[in-house]
Amino acid sequence: KYGVKYDAELSAEAMKEVVKKFKEIYKKETGEDFPQDPFVQLRRAIETVFKSWNNPRAIKYREIHKIPHDMGTAVNVQMMVFGNFGWDSGTGVCFTRNPATGEKELYGEFLPNAQGEDVVAGIRTPYSIKDLKDRLPDVYKQLVKVAELLERHYKDMQDIEFTVEKGKLWLLQTRTGKRTAMAAIKIAVDMAREGIITKEEAIMRVKPEHIQQLLHRQIDPKAKEQHRPIARGLPASPGAAVGKVIFSSEEAEELGKRGEKVILVRPETTPEDIGGMAAAQGILTARGGMTSHAAVVARAMGKPAVVGAEMIHIDLEKEEFRVGDVVVKKGDVITIDGTAGEVYVGELPTIEPKLTSEALELLSWCDEYRKLGIRANADTPEEMRRALEFGAEGVGLTRTENMFVKGGRTDIVYEILLAETEEERRKALEKLIPLQKQDFKEILEVMDGKPVIVRLLDVQFYALVFADPEQLIEQYYKKKYEEGAGSEELMRLENLIHRVRAIRDADPQMGFRACRLGIVYPEVYEAQMRAAIEAAAELKKEGKNPILEIMVPGTAEPNELRFIRRIFEKVLKEVSEKYDVELDVKYGTMIESPRAALLADEMAEICDFFSFGTNDLTQFTFGWSRDDAERAFIHAYLKKKVLPYNPFQTLDDKGVAKLMEWAVKNARKVKPDIELGICGEHGGEPRSIEICHKVGLDYVSASPWRIPVARLVAAQAAIKEKQQKE
Amino acid sequence: KYGVKYDAELSAEAMKEVVKKFKEIYKKETGEDFPQDPFVQLRRAIETVFKSWNNPRAIKYREIHKIPHDMGTAVNVQMMVFGNFGWDSGTGVCFTRNPATGEKELYGEFLPNAQGEDVVAGIRTPYSIKDLKDRLPDVYKQLVKVAELLERHYKDMQDIEFTVEKGKLWLLQTRTGKRTAMAAIKIAVDMAREGIITKEEAIMRVKPEHIQQLLHRQIDPKAKEQHRPIARGLPASPGAAVGKVIFSSEEAEELGKRGEKVILVRPETTPEDIGGMAAAQGILTARGGMTSHAAVVARAMGKPAVVGAEMIHIDLEKEEFRVGDVVVKKGDVITIDGTAGEVYVGELPTIEPKLTSEALELLSWCDEYRKLGIRANADTPEEMRRALEFGAEGVGLTRTENMFVKGGRTDIVYEILLAETEEERRKALEKLIPLQKQDFKEILEVMDGKPVIVRLLDVQFYALVFADPEQLIEQYYKKKYEEGAGSEELMRLENLIHRVRAIRDADPQMGFRACRLGIVYPEVYEAQMRAAIEAAAELKKEGKNPILEIMVPGTAEPNELRFIRRIFEKVLKEVSEKYDVELDVKYGTMIESPRAALLADEMAEICDFFSFGTNDLTQFTFGWSRDDAERAFIHAYLKKKVLPYNPFQTLDDKGVAKLMEWAVKNARKVKPDIELGICGEHGGEPRSIEICHKVGLDYVSASPWRIPVARLVAAQAAIKEKQQKE
Repeated sequence: KYGVKYDAELSAEAMKEVVKKFKEIYKKETGEDFPQDPFVQLRRAIETVFKSWNNPRAIKYREIHKIPHDMGTAVNVQMMVFGNFGWDSGTGVCFTRNPATGEKELYGEFLPNAQGEDVVAGIRTPYSIKDLKDRLPDVYKQLVKVAELLERHYKDMQDIEFTVEKGKLWLLQTRTGKRTAMAAIKIAVDMAREGIITKEEAIMRVKPEHIQQLLHRQIDPKAKEQHRPIARGLPASPGAAVGKVIFSSEEAEELGKRGEKVILVRPETTPEDIGGMAAAQGILTARGGMTSHAAVVARAMGKPAVVGAEMIHIDLEKEEFRVGDVVVKKGDVITIDGTAGEVYVGELPTIEPKLTSEALELLSWCDEYRKLGIRANADTPEEMRRALEFGAEGVGLTRTENMFVKGGRTDIVYEILLAETEEERRKALEKLIPLQKQDFKEILEVMDGKPVIVRLLDVQFYALVFADPEQLIEQYYKKKYEEGAGSEELMRLENLIHRVRAIRDADPQMGFRACRLGIVYPEVYEAQMRAAIEAAAELKKEGKNPILEIMVPGTAEPNELRFIRRIFEKVLKEVSEKYDVELDVKYGTMIESPRAALLADEMAEICDFFSFGTNDLTQFTFGWSRDDAERAFIHAYLKKKVLPYNPFQTLDDKGVAKLMEWAVKNARKVKPDIELGICGEHGGEPRSIEICHKVGLDYVSASPWRIPVARLVAAQAAIKEKQQKE
Repeated sequence: KYGVKYDAELSAEAMKEVVKKFKEIYKKETGEDFPQDPFVQLRRAIETVFKSWNNPRAIKYREIHKIPHDMGTAVNVQMMVFGNFGWDSGTGVCFTRNPATGEKELYGEFLPNAQGEDVVAGIRTPYSIKDLKDRLPDVYKQLVKVAELLERHYKDMQDIEFTVEKGKLWLLQTRTGKRTAMAAIKIAVDMAREGIITKEEAIMRVKPEHIQQLLHRQIDPKAKEQHRPIARGLPASPGAAVGKVIFSSEEAEELGKRGEKVILVRPETTPEDIGGMAAAQGILTARGGMTSHAAVVARAMGKPAVVGAEMIHIDLEKEEFRVGDVVVKKGDVITIDGTAGEVYVGELPTIEPKLTSEALELLSWCDEYRKLGIRANADTPEEMRRALEFGAEGVGLTRTENMFVKGGRTDIVYEILLAETEEERRKALEKLIPLQKQDFKEILEVMDGKPVIVRLLDVQFYALVFADPEQLIEQYYKKKYEEGAGSEELMRLENLIHRVRAIRDADPQMGFRACRLGIVYPEVYEAQMRAAIEAAAELKKEGKNPILEIMVPGTAEPNELRFIRRIFEKVLKEVSEKYDVELDVKYGTMIESPRAALLADEMAEICDFFSFGTNDLTQFTFGWSRDDAERAFIHAYLKKKVLPYNPFQTLDDKGVAKLMEWAVKNARKVKPDIELGICGEHGGEPRSIEICHKVGLDYVSASPWRIPVARLVAAQAAIKEKQQKE
């Protein structure tokens, strides 16, 4: 209207007109004239600041950041300086270090002849702070000096707002600057090196999320702004992955061998899918929760996964899935974001993960402070190598389920499954022992000199090969009517359905699994222990130093441990004699049921170690199945404030932690040197690790990808404790 | 060979020949001559007695009766008397009272001119003890006197062995006599009346099984000897039942109305089968465990049931079931024994149950001693009337599931199930309120003046109408291919399958049920509470005295109770105002999860009462689902001595009872007058009732048929405690 680009160019007349307009708007909205008394104006301005404490955005902000609502705010009243007094005036914002990379350099923007709003509003394009050096060299020199001074004073990178009025520098505000994960770590480490802060302070300043963010390939945030996900599921395993959609594990494995990038898409996965999962870039399932097979294995492999994406309808026969109108066919490229639980059509650009040299340095400092040991939950030599790279001091949990099915061993599982007598089962198991011995040798060799806890079989045999018995029934009827299968084939299926229905658990989590299997079918645990202990014996013979610990899952009663211990001792003796070698193998149990925790003193008498399985312990303490809870009601509980957080993600400090404390105290009373750890997923979660430290565990064990975070949090917990004592 | 019938008739020559034969056998077996020195003979005889301590039968006996193996035995050496010195000699056995009926009369057998072995061996038929009166009147008189004396001395009915040598009575042995349930009760009550023992002693002397045995119709033991069961299952609900096999609940209901006796045979039952179950004499299912729907409902109804009889293959279409080669068709008569878990083809004779007058008297004595209150788990007016007859002082648990489905209300459940919004659910629930109000009125009227605990809905909606979602899939494919059903019908089924699969729990026991339902869908609990409280208000208006207590199931977190309490208070206020009547309704929770027990102090602040749901509490404390445990491994655990007893039948005193004790202590600390009870099935089990007494509960609640036993055991626990203090 006035033919100018910036407000500074407006004439006095035009300004008067604008002021008039503003006054009219004020009167219309408030019903009174704009006050002309400067004191009234000031008073109103102060009131407005106070009132802003209760606007919805402020309330939301406080809720997110857990700031109490009754804390209140202050108002500073001070003289105004003007950046729009001419071209030797101006205003700017600067960071004392680069907030994106952490480099030590003045970083920011400057706008000459302007006020602060002009920078914020983005009407004029500001100059880089470097330009200030040429335009107002004295001011720039002063700013550099002040920046240094403020940083030394506040001991952190500062975000400074300043105004220059006729060549004179005024600081309007300084505060700790926001920064990226990478910058946060670099700044903390650099400042400790520069002597501005101590190593302890550097450790306390880095947040677990900072470390975590470095460890996963992410979708480029810019690309995310431009695309919408076609489906959402649970963020089961973080990171981004791009690949061709493949619906069969065998095919994924084949393509993987040829170097193709694929995303394995399944209704849900079973141990039989491990090969395909390993070969895929990422996993997408339509069913299952945060502890479904797909989720647990993906996290252990460090592979991005989105699970339980119920919006996608998979048609395995047509090899396609649908979301609403969108059809994604085999071979189409998709991108999944396991951090957010999102699925995109097409290839989105991603950012590489890496632990920076500063992160590595920081973590080495952490190791000086922390009291908790750090172990890994890892099942394969590859995972263990990764864990060692990340700083694991041992393996807290090796699951053995996969050793029953990998490399074509499924046939043996069917043999066990269909066996009618102990002899038949033993015969089938005999075939497994040499194969599993080899598996154990590989593992113990990678971890040579470091403890490896081997958990005995935890799931029922049928669950090793069928995800869902209902599929059998569908298959049966389909075969019967559509394919006209031969009567032999149908008979076989019918038999299998009967068999599985008869042994299927009504409540799998509380069913016939874990050590119950090893008591009803002692030959199974005997075979597993023989394979593991013989592996250790052979390595010892070869001059290696295998440190094997055998762990019994799912105990609730000390007699269970006594029963299996008799088999353990028999096998240990037999193997020692066979190889003529002295073996020191520890025997212990998971503490997964409330009863095991309550009877910890009696359990401790029979054990060399405990490992808290806090996922099951949480399930049973609450009486909630995790899958059902996360599917059906945890969300409502959080929304309705019935729960402050999801106890399957963060250890429940009121119930589960109480049981753990009780168990630790009573176990140590009976056996002071008993080794106590945690191998539930909580072992990798920051707030839970702090509880583990407080409760007095010896170590936490987490999937390899969570180990760096665990090292940080363990150090922070130790430092906090030290500070509280001082 | 010697032409005689009894050994007493043998000549001296013949005797010598027999002795020679015996000597030869002895030499052949032992390799040495039979010792002729009487002292050596005596020594050998003594050794034989000592050795008998370790024969397999003795070991088994001690195991059954829990007698320690290191206790040892004694040998008495005494002079021999001879009952075979002629016809004024003889031997016999007598009871001081009739061991079958308890009548006060000498009861037993006598054999003249014979030794003890002759009576035991059964070669000669003995005379009734009455005959002794005529044959040897003096001896008889003496025996009567001695019997009286011994009974007074030992204060119990005696089982006496005696020998008469030439007219002189010698007593060989006296011990407490074995007796039937009926006799045990009569003898105890009579002896107390006669002043031989005190009332306390009479109560202590009757065993819970004695009372229990009187309460169930049994198969005549003689008939049982002559028939073999065709199938076995779990003894889900005791008693015998005879009737025609019927496979549909509707048909069972119809035939029941016409007075026909039927046995309802189903794969398993759902709340929809309640009508048929009520009309049937007994229930037989092929699947399900001791807490399956069929089992729980049958016990509550006091109806014999055999469940989980997996050997029977039911073909619902053909209306028949098979066990091996045997085919039982609709209309065929079978007999089931719910006490033993057996199924017989045909009608076996049964014995009527009744509480004798002595049993009633004994139970009234019990009420003077016991400290535990006795309530009933009962869902219908009929069950409650039965419970009152048996002496219930209130209702500890009314389940409300049936109020959703009975009398054609299933359609409303489908409406709720398929509702997409809260409004749609509320609309459906509105229809239920007046119907359920009527149900509650009937119940509260029967129990007028006595407390009635109403448990809010505990299962998910779909579970009210489907026993097994898999059946839907079978149905779908069958319809699709066999019946060529219309596409609309198929679409409906497909929709239902999708719906149910989406909301079905992976672990129903720990899934989306109990108070989780009431928090996610508050309108459901609101409707139930409104119906119940309005019923109480209307009765109060009519001058009655309804005592209503509202119970929230399955809590794990105090906030759950706070959330639902807000609804409770709102409804209570609204109803009080609507009817203008002051209502005193208690609000409480079940303690079913370990976490609820651990946080009992905080829970108590929000509650007027707790009721321990020990079935779930046992499940979660162990991490075992009862159905799976009893199907798959409890049996092996007992056999391998991993467990001393089944913790689902008898309260686990090491784990579950510990949690209960903790909860009771901490709840009373916060609220000393909080009302504490148990409504798990353990509440009717003798050893568990004793634990409840020790833990300090106010009452136990059990199904009506277990109430007489509960009264007895509660009295015994109080007496034992008193005795220990003295």
